[in-house]
Amino acid sequence: MNDTEYHKQLGIGESAFDALEDHLEHRTYEGREYRHVPDYRRGVERGTVLMEGEVVRGFPKIPRALVLETGIPEQFDDRVAVEEKLNGYNVRIARVDGDQLAFTRSGMVCPFTTRMIERLVDLEPLFDEHPEAMVCGEMIGPENPYTAHDYPGVESLVFRAFDWRNRTSGEPLDVEERRERYERFDVPQTQLFGTYDVDGAASEVRPIIEELDDEGREGVVMQSPDGSTQLKYTTSASSRGDLAYAFSLPFDYGQEFMFRRLLREGFQTIEWDENDDAARERAHELGEAILLSMRDAIETVEDGDSVGERHTVRASSETVNVLLEHLRDQGLQLEIEEDRREDGDRVVTFCKKVQSSNDKIRNYLEGQIVTE
Amino acid sequence: MNDTEYHKQLGIGESAFDALEDHLEHRTYEGREYRHVPDYRRGVERGTVLMEGEVVRGFPKIPRALVLETGIPEQFDDRVAVEEKLNGYNVRIARVDGDQLAFTRSGMVCPFTTRMIERLVDLEPLFDEHPEAMVCGEMIGPENPYTAHDYPGVESLVFRAFDWRNRTSGEPLDVEERRERYERFDVPQTQLFGTYDVDGAASEVRPIIEELDDEGREGVVMQSPDGSTQLKYTTSASSRGDLAYAFSLPFDYGQEFMFRRLLREGFQTIEWDENDDAARERAHELGEAILLSMRDAIETVEDGDSVGERHTVRASSETVNVLLEHLRDQGLQLEIEEDRREDGDRVVTFCKKVQSSNDKIRNYLEGQIVTE
Repeated sequence: MNDTEYHKQLGIGESAFDALEDHLEHRTYEGREYRHVPDYRRGVERGTVLMEGEVVRGFPKIPRALVLETGIPEQFDDRVAVEEKLNGYNVRIARVDGDQLAFTRSGMVCPFTTRMIERLVDLEPLFDEHPEAMVCGEMIGPENPYTAHDYPGVESLVFRAFDWRNRTSGEPLDVEERRERYERFDVPQTQLFGTYDVDGAASEVRPIIEELDDEGREGVVMQSPDGSTQLKYTTSASSRGDLAYAFSLPFDYGQEFMFRRLLREGFQTIEWDENDDAARERAHELGEAILLSMRDAIETVEDGDSVGERHTVRASSETVNVLLEHLRDQGLQLEIEEDRREDGDRVVTFCKKVQSSNDKIRNYLEGQIVTE
Repeated sequence: MNDTEYHKQLGIGESAFDALEDHLEHRTYEGREYRHVPDYRRGVERGTVLMEGEVVRGFPKIPRALVLETGIPEQFDDRVAVEEKLNGYNVRIARVDGDQLAFTRSGMVCPFTTRMIERLVDLEPLFDEHPEAMVCGEMIGPENPYTAHDYPGVESLVFRAFDWRNRTSGEPLDVEERRERYERFDVPQTQLFGTYDVDGAASEVRPIIEELDDEGREGVVMQSPDGSTQLKYTTSASSRGDLAYAFSLPFDYGQEFMFRRLLREGFQTIEWDENDDAARERAHELGEAILLSMRDAIETVEDGDSVGERHTVRASSETVNVLLEHLRDQGLQLEIEEDRREDGDRVVTFCKKVQSSNDKIRNYLEGQIVTE
């Protein structure tokens, strides 16, 4: 297919496509060449893939409310469907030229997820009936090569669908139909808490968030019933978890990442009208997330070890191999810490080495002077 | 005087001076034109002033240690003089063309400080004997238009000398001679804790820092006995104070400013080998500094008030007028909150309005969505 066809599928002009083309990343997956939009560009979602003359549209960024009471009416007019937001990694699955492939947020084929999804859920009937479908969901659980988080009842890795879009246009199904279809195709999905009137939604969401927070879960995605408008809101546990993670690798995370999570805590304590004791308790937990994880990181380097992102995966030997190769291809330095067999699977614990945090912490411990 | 003479005084080549010239800020003080180096440029200190054919050298940036035990030997060879670092604003006083002028860190003449210094300390005999002197010190105390901080026994504003340099070359006096001279000229100065061997210095400084921390004071400046090499180290109270201030105006302070202070806390808890309880206590205080001040700020805006930097000054009516004019000339929006007479002085409380924090907090409270 020539590029003229792509611009039509993407719904942009030829010259806009020409401008986009310079920014496309070129990759190959098992002999198949493809291009993808690796970052945010005007008009075309990040993660959009061009492959074999077909388009797999990127998943849109979901905006966030810092204050529910005012943010919900700002974003929605009528009814609001509230579903759980899970803490894992975003994946889109589409059938392209006959093959079922799993794409990461930025539009790379993830060879690990492509294989795991086949083990976890049978999407063949769904794609047979709806070849244009893009199944959007989250891979969650502790044995996770990207974002590990514990969920009750999830021992390794599972898939939870949270959206269903047209692969080419990115148009979503409405919430009810999407949920019914996933139910019918036996695809596990995120939980729906309910659909509320926009006026009462904030007071409905508040206790949901409190319960999710108690359970250490991430938050909610709110949507218009037609699925076209979305809004997210997260728990204090999620902000703290992110902060603890960021400060465990303090020089490898953006300072804006840290700042935004502090901000969320500030607005939540105000919206929830916390008294001095409750605000102080929140402040203490926030401080612990920051300082104690930074302390662990510095101690680790002081002891001669190195900090990094540690992950465990459980899969067939071939799937583990393609994952490690895929990560190394992206320039990641991996250290295999454990590699064993269990019930026919290979269980591998590896550490993604990070450069800045190890180097800078070591330098400062050795007396390097800071000129600020 | 032509510029050829300036480059000689600055000790740089003609072409380097030509390159510098484009970056000089032009200003006037009471009919006197001058230029200054407003930011960090290679070769010439920020704050360097060219006026009436004379040079007033900028005050050098003092580097910081994150870890005393290793940072001190990295910076010093032999003996280390330890003096208190005060929390106020840095000022340099020089006699230029017969007039005693006070310069800010960035090299502006501060009309307020120029007048106040004459009230606070008689530098005439010093400049008569040493016309080339640059008296460097800190203006501290609660009635302070830039950086207010309480010190025991300081009711309004006082001056404390901490360095003595040649106005043109920037060369410092050695610590002992400087202290003797200030003593002789009856100029109040920062306290000297002692001079120690480099090997034992970290363990000498540690209890000094702990005591300063208990008193809510800022920290120390360490120096080679000849004054040429300097190094600073600050207390946890200072980091917390800075964080509380920054998060009281969260969108007007740099995220790097915040991050660096968190980092200092991380390295201090490690160097001081704090056990879990002590580290947790430090984490709690850190969390309070961040969250409770952000909470206050959001509450203030929610109540319809605005956040800003509030200062009180006490001086003659003319001095207060030139200060307010000077601040407004720099584009600051001031709101006068109180203006009264006391013992022949005018006592004015004003608020420097900040734009971003007020606007962004209000927007988020009103439901603005964040796309991150």
